[in-house]
Amino acid sequence: MDNPRAGPLFIIGGHEDKDGPRVILKAIAKALSGRKLVLATVASHEPDGYFESYQKAFADLGLGALVELYVNDRAETHDAAKLAVLDDAGGVFFSGGDQLRISSQLGDTPMEERIRRIWQEGGVLAGTSAGASVMSDTMLVRGASAESYRLGDLHMAPGLGLMRDVIIDQHFAERGRIGRLLGAVAHSPRVLGIGIDEDTAIRVDGDHFEVLGNGAVYVVDGEGVTQSNIAEGRSDCALSIYDVRLHVLARGDAFDIKARRPRDQQNPIEGRSKNGGNKPH
Amino acid sequence: MDNPRAGPLFIIGGHEDKDGPRVILKAIAKALSGRKLVLATVASHEPDGYFESYQKAFADLGLGALVELYVNDRAETHDAAKLAVLDDAGGVFFSGGDQLRISSQLGDTPMEERIRRIWQEGGVLAGTSAGASVMSDTMLVRGASAESYRLGDLHMAPGLGLMRDVIIDQHFAERGRIGRLLGAVAHSPRVLGIGIDEDTAIRVDGDHFEVLGNGAVYVVDGEGVTQSNIAEGRSDCALSIYDVRLHVLARGDAFDIKARRPRDQQNPIEGRSKNGGNKPH
Repeated sequence: MDNPRAGPLFIIGGHEDKDGPRVILKAIAKALSGRKLVLATVASHEPDGYFESYQKAFADLGLGALVELYVNDRAETHDAAKLAVLDDAGGVFFSGGDQLRISSQLGDTPMEERIRRIWQEGGVLAGTSAGASVMSDTMLVRGASAESYRLGDLHMAPGLGLMRDVIIDQHFAERGRIGRLLGAVAHSPRVLGIGIDEDTAIRVDGDHFEVLGNGAVYVVDGEGVTQSNIAEGRSDCALSIYDVRLHVLARGDAFDIKARRPRDQQNPIEGRSKNGGNKPH
Repeated sequence: MDNPRAGPLFIIGGHEDKDGPRVILKAIAKALSGRKLVLATVASHEPDGYFESYQKAFADLGLGALVELYVNDRAETHDAAKLAVLDDAGGVFFSGGDQLRISSQLGDTPMEERIRRIWQEGGVLAGTSAGASVMSDTMLVRGASAESYRLGDLHMAPGLGLMRDVIIDQHFAERGRIGRLLGAVAHSPRVLGIGIDEDTAIRVDGDHFEVLGNGAVYVVDGEGVTQSNIAEGRSDCALSIYDVRLHVLARGDAFDIKARRPRDQQNPIEGRSKNGGNKPH
């Protein structure tokens, strides 16, 4: 994120519209401006059909080309023919599945290095669902949906680390995941929790992002937390945490990650609200 | 709430345990100390079986008696025989169903007046699910679960008004209802949003409450909100709202409604945290 030449990240909460107005896919196609896109279906155990569905969805959006990248195992990430799929790519799109498959197959391999370089040299990286979770340096792997967070019930692992100091969750409102995102933030309030609804995305450029799509994006900021039972509570006890700051963002809203503040649309440089009262705390 | 003689309110998020440790029902029975409890099944269109299930659940918990109160229509709330069911009652428990049935059948009737007086004279009022929602002066009637709040998609109505300046939602984490509670609070940040999980309750005494049961209680405080699109946004657009304060409380945690602050368990009078940093804002 400290590289001014790096391209945008599109982080999508899953189930992006593929046959309607396709707001998110259009924005990705636009950012590619005619370059080739690699669809990495690595997250899926059974990637059949993924490529075809994106081929159809992107068909008339002006991509230079759309090609699939799949690896059955980690050894293939060294394979010259597989790596050649990334030649001349203007971007890589990670489809859904299991985020652990992406990180365990690609982490610290020549293929990951190649993908990272595409981005660092101005290419577009996008990911949906599992492909979204894997963008941050620590990623949520498992944790109950549709219930409050219980101490001990969360599994995190290193992600690809393209976005720092955040942890991303997807299918957010649809699967009732505020509980587990609060649990993740309680573990380390330094990290901003970002929950992204289905058919909703953030476009990250450097230290800020903008929301696009149909739903909402939740930012859970634990910096001001005054008390929680995360370290002392009994395992399986419900999480208790006081003074979380929560922002809900809709399309067009923008957020400054470093300042931990929504950007005011009328005064984007200052990052203050119309009401004028809210300083970074 | 300004009446020091009023009894406790038990507000339950639905599905309270009826055949295990029964923490919530035991607390209600204890507060009744041998007095008679009236089970009001008014919220249900088909109350068959409700009474029997609570009879079984309360069987060995030392109630003076458990009797059922049901009204088919509003006219029956004037009926002397029906009203006599409330004679000598030490408490009333509203079971689940449709909150509009409770408010539309009982609101502003002699029966409501009688129930309110039982409470004001030290009796216990309890409600679960629909019976919980109806406790506040404005209640949530309808609104989507498991999605982010969309402008216009919320129906509120006057409740029984036993608890002021709050709006209550139930089955909270289980049905993914943070979105609609944020929507309710966005309408009027003066009102605290209280979301209660299943098998979880708050016991309200005057201006504070304590959490009991298995899950969590979410307090959504909109007082510090700096910006939202609730008044300007297009209908069906996702809600945008900045700087919501969120507290998640687990069993044993207590909250001061007037000060809008969790109470520190070590120093309940001051209402400050162990860290000492949080003043009422």
